[in-house]
Amino acid sequence: MLEKVDLEKKMEKEEYRKYMDILTPKLGRLQRECQERKIPVMIAFEGYGAAGKGVQIAELIQGLDPRGFQVYPVKNETEEEKMHPFLWRFWTKMPAKGRIAIYDSSWYRKVLVDRFDGNTTEEEVERAYRSICSFEEQLTADGMIIIKIFLAIDKKEQKKRLDKLLDSRETAWRVSKGDLERNRHFRTYQEMNEEMLLRTDSAYAPWHIVEATDRKFATVKIYSIVTQVLESKIKEAEETIRRAQSCQLTVKEMEDRVPSVSVEEQALKESVLTKADLTLSYTKEEYKEKLPKLQKKLKKLHGELYRRRIPVVLGFEGWDAGGKGGAIKRLTQKMDPRGYVVHPTASPNDIEKAHHYLWRFWTDMPKAGHVTIFDRTWYGRVMVERIEGFCSKAEWQRAYKEINDMERDLAEAGAIVLKFWMQIDKDEQARRFKERQENPEKQWKITDEDWRNREKWEQYEEAVNEMLIRTSSPHAPWIVVEGNCKYYARIKVLETVVEAIEKKLEEKKS
Amino acid sequence: MLEKVDLEKKMEKEEYRKYMDILTPKLGRLQRECQERKIPVMIAFEGYGAAGKGVQIAELIQGLDPRGFQVYPVKNETEEEKMHPFLWRFWTKMPAKGRIAIYDSSWYRKVLVDRFDGNTTEEEVERAYRSICSFEEQLTADGMIIIKIFLAIDKKEQKKRLDKLLDSRETAWRVSKGDLERNRHFRTYQEMNEEMLLRTDSAYAPWHIVEATDRKFATVKIYSIVTQVLESKIKEAEETIRRAQSCQLTVKEMEDRVPSVSVEEQALKESVLTKADLTLSYTKEEYKEKLPKLQKKLKKLHGELYRRRIPVVLGFEGWDAGGKGGAIKRLTQKMDPRGYVVHPTASPNDIEKAHHYLWRFWTDMPKAGHVTIFDRTWYGRVMVERIEGFCSKAEWQRAYKEINDMERDLAEAGAIVLKFWMQIDKDEQARRFKERQENPEKQWKITDEDWRNREKWEQYEEAVNEMLIRTSSPHAPWIVVEGNCKYYARIKVLETVVEAIEKKLEEKKS
Repeated sequence: MLEKVDLEKKMEKEEYRKYMDILTPKLGRLQRECQERKIPVMIAFEGYGAAGKGVQIAELIQGLDPRGFQVYPVKNETEEEKMHPFLWRFWTKMPAKGRIAIYDSSWYRKVLVDRFDGNTTEEEVERAYRSICSFEEQLTADGMIIIKIFLAIDKKEQKKRLDKLLDSRETAWRVSKGDLERNRHFRTYQEMNEEMLLRTDSAYAPWHIVEATDRKFATVKIYSIVTQVLESKIKEAEETIRRAQSCQLTVKEMEDRVPSVSVEEQALKESVLTKADLTLSYTKEEYKEKLPKLQKKLKKLHGELYRRRIPVVLGFEGWDAGGKGGAIKRLTQKMDPRGYVVHPTASPNDIEKAHHYLWRFWTDMPKAGHVTIFDRTWYGRVMVERIEGFCSKAEWQRAYKEINDMERDLAEAGAIVLKFWMQIDKDEQARRFKERQENPEKQWKITDEDWRNREKWEQYEEAVNEMLIRTSSPHAPWIVVEGNCKYYARIKVLETVVEAIEKKLEEKKS
Repeated sequence: MLEKVDLEKKMEKEEYRKYMDILTPKLGRLQRECQERKIPVMIAFEGYGAAGKGVQIAELIQGLDPRGFQVYPVKNETEEEKMHPFLWRFWTKMPAKGRIAIYDSSWYRKVLVDRFDGNTTEEEVERAYRSICSFEEQLTADGMIIIKIFLAIDKKEQKKRLDKLLDSRETAWRVSKGDLERNRHFRTYQEMNEEMLLRTDSAYAPWHIVEATDRKFATVKIYSIVTQVLESKIKEAEETIRRAQSCQLTVKEMEDRVPSVSVEEQALKESVLTKADLTLSYTKEEYKEKLPKLQKKLKKLHGELYRRRIPVVLGFEGWDAGGKGGAIKRLTQKMDPRGYVVHPTASPNDIEKAHHYLWRFWTDMPKAGHVTIFDRTWYGRVMVERIEGFCSKAEWQRAYKEINDMERDLAEAGAIVLKFWMQIDKDEQARRFKERQENPEKQWKITDEDWRNREKWEQYEEAVNEMLIRTSSPHAPWIVVEGNCKYYARIKVLETVVEAIEKKLEEKKS
């Protein structure tokens, strides 16, 4: 995509002023519109060293209301960032709905500078491309506007600029060894950039190449790109709403008209849950014997995890009163509290609602050596949100892949990922609900919502079966925990975690 | 996705009959509906050896009108198929709109059996996954329904079935060495299947896993999957049309309302074309001296290509009267006619219209060692179809990626891919048009359409500039040929082709 670019383009001051007088107020107006319509925007700046990313960002923000955007310089990963999957730092720097985030070099660093420097292996490059494509696809599907700008200059121009910077004491520090190295091997580096542009130029997040030899020309072109993209996306959003309103049926209603299974009987249904043998149990004596041994073992392994910098992600899902809380309590009882954290997942708050549904989980993911336990998880998307209609059919259907992609990113960054489904039968749930209601100490645990959910048992069963099949993977398996006997369930959870850690430590040794 | 599957499921005869009495006529009805609505359907069967793919396909087609479907058994690649990119054989076996194609093992063979047998390298596996995802995405985006069915049995069951087949002379031949090998190393092969299911389970083409231990259960489940998917997709298509009609605006109108560039002046435009130096020329003498030398060289290289089994794809685009025909004539003049073919590309005929726009080009791609020259190409999608509104904005916007993906598939299969843009200026075109009109020998070459296209010169210029930038890649570059002087243009084309072949032969040597 680069070879056909005309790097000699330039613009005289007068023409520049003429454009900017139109474009600057226009950009401000469009920013306000995005704000009102709650459209989030990410603007990524990539391009060769000394092509003027910093300068151009400084120009661009002149047209923006400073309360509505944030600029993120993306440098070498910090120690903290290195302890997470590489996209983590971009998930945590994601604009909320209606806000603009500008990245001075971006998630592409992994396949450009880091690759050139030999910090990304070729295998990692392949993985990074998969992760990046999935990242951009899921964000834009969720309504994010992603504008990717590439500033191009040629080798000679770059050399001239680097020399000029080196000439002065005040600016010499801005030229890194890497910059000079990449100038020397310009062709090799250009090929990496070319590959990147080709592999990630998509209809949902296309690249915009800016001829950056002349600063004024580049500024005008960037303003022009950003305003055009925003204008056209706002218009599209507007039309979609208008059309939906002028039609008699909403999307939701339309989906409801799609026939559900006409021949659906027990025999054909997915049966992961019904396979669970709920008679499995331990006596109190067996439990009392096993529990402390396992807890002791886990404590030791926890230390080992920390030493070896292995992150652990444990997700708990299950029926209401399925025993999640009890299992988590026994799991963590003897663990060093500085090394783990439990995140209870409630309905999303306003800030969380203003982001992609996976955002809050990404930001809470453990760094290397730490354990994070989620009491209810991102699987809400394909359970409660699916059943209650909090998201559209298209949204929960694509969520399986989005979730598999996220868990793959975690696993590839070295994490142990386990997901527990606490299974009880309907009678056992009734018994526990009743017990909770009658016991003043436990009454807080039971709400009207629990009873409402219980009425949708069959719908949940169908959704859970599909979820378990579509999202159980070797690197992030689901474990169905037979939970009618609480003793049995707690021991099974502990045993599974212990085994998984032992296996991982063994692998890493060899 | 496999580990949670319950392989013990079965169904009694009576229940089986009850289901089939409903599902069989239903499938027939849905097939007719797809036919009427011109929806094409691909059904891919994958799964372990002896899981019953053949048997189940035989059952499925009982419910179908034989005039409307075709079954393709996918075995080892033939010699012919090996000489093309691996997806070529599926492009050539693609159902037209309204028809159903059923694949007994499919495009996944490359990452399953072939991988297990060591016929697909790990690098090829990565590429194959990229190609497969792109293939399914672009077909479904174009309206294809893809139903992917995976038949699962366990190692023991498979062994039992293979032994039974081996016991009888009549059936023993059906068990291959590979089947036994995959049974012996069931776990390894299962991991490949698991990876495949996870990497390609998408919202647009999800996997359906069928528990295949019990034949009757599997048949009912397959019927049920196919009818459910068809029913819901037909309904979706229906609703989309209904909604479009009930809205005041059509998609086309809505797109037109998206503002085009408000500040658009010459300075900001892409300028690949204006950069071409149209004063470049050769005298007749120079031409007469260079031409025979180059043609002789090419003739020799053509033989070498054949011997080394390198396929060559040459695409010609350019302004009307830009000199495509003349250049192609000089290029092929001395080449052995058994080793090349020229495909003139006209507006698509009815059969072509009933397929994806890339289909006709895929089927015409050269096999290894052959040269195919396209006089006008697949780039019509982003030029004439874009400008005349023959496809929607979303369609031509995603075409850049689809085309890049196709060319990458070709290049990765070893092909030389070159694309020539024959550039002339507007005055030169006028001169040539006039000459054609005045010369009775050449009058056939000029039509009213040429004049109409000329009126849209600026629109074409914009589209061509974008096309050249977005689709020029190191493995499939665009060459802008300065064409005001025909001699110069013809020599440049010949020289470029000769150089590209020499370079490829050099690479392959080392």
